[in-house]
Amino acid sequence: MNRKLLFWMMLSFANTRLISAWTSRQRKNAAGLLCLAASLRTTTSHCAPTIPEEWLEYDHYNGVTISLNQSMNDFATALQNSLQQWKHEGRKGIWLQIPEAHAAHVGSAVAAGFRFHLVQQNTLILSAWLPSFDDPTAISRLPAGPTHQVGVGCLVFHPDDSSKMLVVQEKTGPAAAWSLWKMPTGLTDAGEDIHAAAERELKEETGLTAACRGILQFRQAHPTQLKDNSKRVYRTHSDLFFVCVLQLLEKEIVLEACPDEIAAIQWMSVEDYCRQERWQSSPVYQEMNRVIQEAQLSHMMQPYTLELGFGRGTNALYHSRPPQSQL
Amino acid sequence: MNRKLLFWMMLSFANTRLISAWTSRQRKNAAGLLCLAASLRTTTSHCAPTIPEEWLEYDHYNGVTISLNQSMNDFATALQNSLQQWKHEGRKGIWLQIPEAHAAHVGSAVAAGFRFHLVQQNTLILSAWLPSFDDPTAISRLPAGPTHQVGVGCLVFHPDDSSKMLVVQEKTGPAAAWSLWKMPTGLTDAGEDIHAAAERELKEETGLTAACRGILQFRQAHPTQLKDNSKRVYRTHSDLFFVCVLQLLEKEIVLEACPDEIAAIQWMSVEDYCRQERWQSSPVYQEMNRVIQEAQLSHMMQPYTLELGFGRGTNALYHSRPPQSQL
Repeated sequence: MNRKLLFWMMLSFANTRLISAWTSRQRKNAAGLLCLAASLRTTTSHCAPTIPEEWLEYDHYNGVTISLNQSMNDFATALQNSLQQWKHEGRKGIWLQIPEAHAAHVGSAVAAGFRFHLVQQNTLILSAWLPSFDDPTAISRLPAGPTHQVGVGCLVFHPDDSSKMLVVQEKTGPAAAWSLWKMPTGLTDAGEDIHAAAERELKEETGLTAACRGILQFRQAHPTQLKDNSKRVYRTHSDLFFVCVLQLLEKEIVLEACPDEIAAIQWMSVEDYCRQERWQSSPVYQEMNRVIQEAQLSHMMQPYTLELGFGRGTNALYHSRPPQSQL
Repeated sequence: MNRKLLFWMMLSFANTRLISAWTSRQRKNAAGLLCLAASLRTTTSHCAPTIPEEWLEYDHYNGVTISLNQSMNDFATALQNSLQQWKHEGRKGIWLQIPEAHAAHVGSAVAAGFRFHLVQQNTLILSAWLPSFDDPTAISRLPAGPTHQVGVGCLVFHPDDSSKMLVVQEKTGPAAAWSLWKMPTGLTDAGEDIHAAAERELKEETGLTAACRGILQFRQAHPTQLKDNSKRVYRTHSDLFFVCVLQLLEKEIVLEACPDEIAAIQWMSVEDYCRQERWQSSPVYQEMNRVIQEAQLSHMMQPYTLELGFGRGTNALYHSRPPQSQL
């Protein structure tokens, strides 16, 4: 595996800028030569159109990113010329960012050899692995896009009776059809930490303010189920589901079901929750329920938010060691 | 949050098929009426083109998925007509799947009001939230695409001396520039469990066969670093990095560095590993290194692979309770 982690990419950004500045100068020289070569060939002084330099950014994996932020009449020709030039220079991975406003250019990009890669911030990112243009067996080393959605379940034991847990019935979806009592659940928002998502979801669905004390367990699921009986390809990504234990911060507990999503809300004995018929046929849920019944703080990975240090911002870290201050 | 988990979507698929069969009949009646209305208006017998019924699949969230698997001359008109009809029927989320072969239609789709949503299996998935066509404040309830890549680090203690761990130096990337000794790392492949990815990566980078005994800790990182100083939008997804502890299954240990990726490989004292200069400025890495130094099996979440039961396939489950058989 030569695809390296996003983390390293982020750290390496400072380096990239230096290399960009250098390669940018080299590129201008190369563009001049191409222009000269073209004018010699055609005996006119008109240069073959290429992608404008100010749309480009170079990376230290020998790649180029094109940001298509305005329309261009001869985009298809310019793209093909630039690809030829980059192949000649020995470049490898080319990224092309097309925002929705310029979606009409997507066809030309695919015709030039680009593949759909991912969508982010309403922008379609295409990629071309230049070595595979001449050698179809050359495998792209460009990192794949994101593969997982991340969900949370909120496990809240009653502060005065830990044999009871908070459960909801949903208004729509399969759990509603089964009248299943379940933990409040939801997906993390973009850029949101797991423990923060659990606190937000609990607040949204039940009105309760709580602090996430730890992750009790988590489940990874891949959607093999859709493959052979559906025309649909969307939502075929994997799912990580974290069971978070939260401690209420309210002095007085008032349950307020979210009117859009939650049909009913109550405290239920953990035993009754686990005995629900729906779980009985599922080894995964039986095991998850056993872990819930035996839950203790010492079994959990607690969340810590720490400065990255050699880059901006913080990371969330989850582990089950006591904090150093308590040792 | 009304966006529900992938898991529920997969479970609900059987229901969807039943509803599809029913709505499909209703739709044919509706299409007939539209055709009749069109013929009355235009006083010709030619029907307004709509998206062919056999390209459609209905879901029980009141949505429609269009699979564009062949080219269509009047696609732009047909799409607009179908959208009008679905709006009239009170439908909400419309998905449109465009494979690379039909990339030329992407422009028409965006012009008709579709947004880029995600890319999967080399297919661009666009979406349109019909309620927002008339009311721009209506917020889409369609689930976002995947948000995270999942990486693993392989922590292998020497079988005869647990004060030593296996480390590598990489050939390329920032860690190489810093001459950093690090755990073998990599990204999970599509559909691959975390513990399986750790075993595969270790094998690929070092030649060693091992079994993943547990997850010691994990880190969640969001790429705030790229936002304000780069034109690039790609790779702005989040990262989950799991530190996996592996136990060697080899009788005789022979270290074989992967020639493409690994420059050097050795056993190193955990203390020396943690003392490397690069970590000193990073609170995140200092804490991760402390947890590595104190690693014990009881601190880990062990992997279990279990049948889902009420659906096909297995899930991976991670928790730190002893298996039931050992209680």
